[in-house]
Amino acid sequence: MKFSSKTLEKAVEAMSALPSIGKKSALRLVLHLANNKGEKKKRLIEAINALQDELKICKCCHNYADTEICDICNDQARNKKQICVVESVKDVMAIENTMQFSGVYHILGGVISPLEGIGPDELNIDSLLERLKIQEVEELIMAISPTIEGETTIYYVSKLIDDSVSISTIARGVSFGGELEYADELTLGRSIQSRTQYNKSMSL
Amino acid sequence: MKFSSKTLEKAVEAMSALPSIGKKSALRLVLHLANNKGEKKKRLIEAINALQDELKICKCCHNYADTEICDICNDQARNKKQICVVESVKDVMAIENTMQFSGVYHILGGVISPLEGIGPDELNIDSLLERLKIQEVEELIMAISPTIEGETTIYYVSKLIDDSVSISTIARGVSFGGELEYADELTLGRSIQSRTQYNKSMSL
Repeated sequence: MKFSSKTLEKAVEAMSALPSIGKKSALRLVLHLANNKGEKKKRLIEAINALQDELKICKCCHNYADTEICDICNDQARNKKQICVVESVKDVMAIENTMQFSGVYHILGGVISPLEGIGPDELNIDSLLERLKIQEVEELIMAISPTIEGETTIYYVSKLIDDSVSISTIARGVSFGGELEYADELTLGRSIQSRTQYNKSMSL
Repeated sequence: MKFSSKTLEKAVEAMSALPSIGKKSALRLVLHLANNKGEKKKRLIEAINALQDELKICKCCHNYADTEICDICNDQARNKKQICVVESVKDVMAIENTMQFSGVYHILGGVISPLEGIGPDELNIDSLLERLKIQEVEELIMAISPTIEGETTIYYVSKLIDDSVSISTIARGVSFGGELEYADELTLGRSIQSRTQYNKSMSL
């Protein structure tokens, strides 16, 4: 791509360093910003700066927050005896959107992946064990991706936790709206193993 | 979408105000930036700031540039007697990438579109007429999108220019790699009207 200006070229490069933004998308975004001198650009810069200056990480669950302790951990209505262990902030948002969980969270910050150089020490496992000592916790719900790395992480964490805390994983099975013939064998096999009693009075 | 932090929410809003960035993409970008405290974010902010502070618009052709006059207008090797009139900076880049044009450009900044409130006064038409008075120009190549608005703009500009300057439009026809049966009637009709002599010795 030939640029008429070095400034333009640098902006396109910085923009295309973001995930899923290619050179062409970056160019469109940069030209849009270059045309919009003023409010929109100022707001974007302020917002990106605020990410650095104002965004805090909850000391309890490691979620992003505006305060030392996030709103979910602070909420007295939530069941502190249930901790849902997830990989990332995105997972918390996804589960919150389902409105099916009223406990609290703990964000690991990833899964154990030797190939990517992520060992247990890189994850927020110590602080989880610390929480279990301080808080009275009945159940850990492991809402971790059903991958090799995810399963390894679940196994590793479960080994560190004594039997007074029950550990569960989210159900694996065929998605709603999914067709059986397209489900992979592992998923289908698991969904048969962990079949649930059909409840005639239950509705979707 | 539920956000755990107002800062996060504001950043997602500012990001999703950009074209073709939805809420989910914006969230992914913002979380990526939030995780990358440091270099990447700093570079992006600097680059966006530079768009405001350093990016100039060429006084001659209205292209983005680092100097008062852009590199293309400054290039003595380029044929100043041919001006290619385009809508936007992106079009200049697209034509430059073909390496088929060695003249100079004039960016109108859009096309006449009464529906969007863009009249001739909003476009860089006056400065084009000014250029024609000062420079000796033989040909104006109208590389404008073949839409109703584009055709209107070509017609409007052509009426303002005296007959000493020849005016051409880029060829309209079926794209390379395109199949005839999928071409629309107007394009196909035009491509038959403006058929060109087949040259046996010409290669693609």
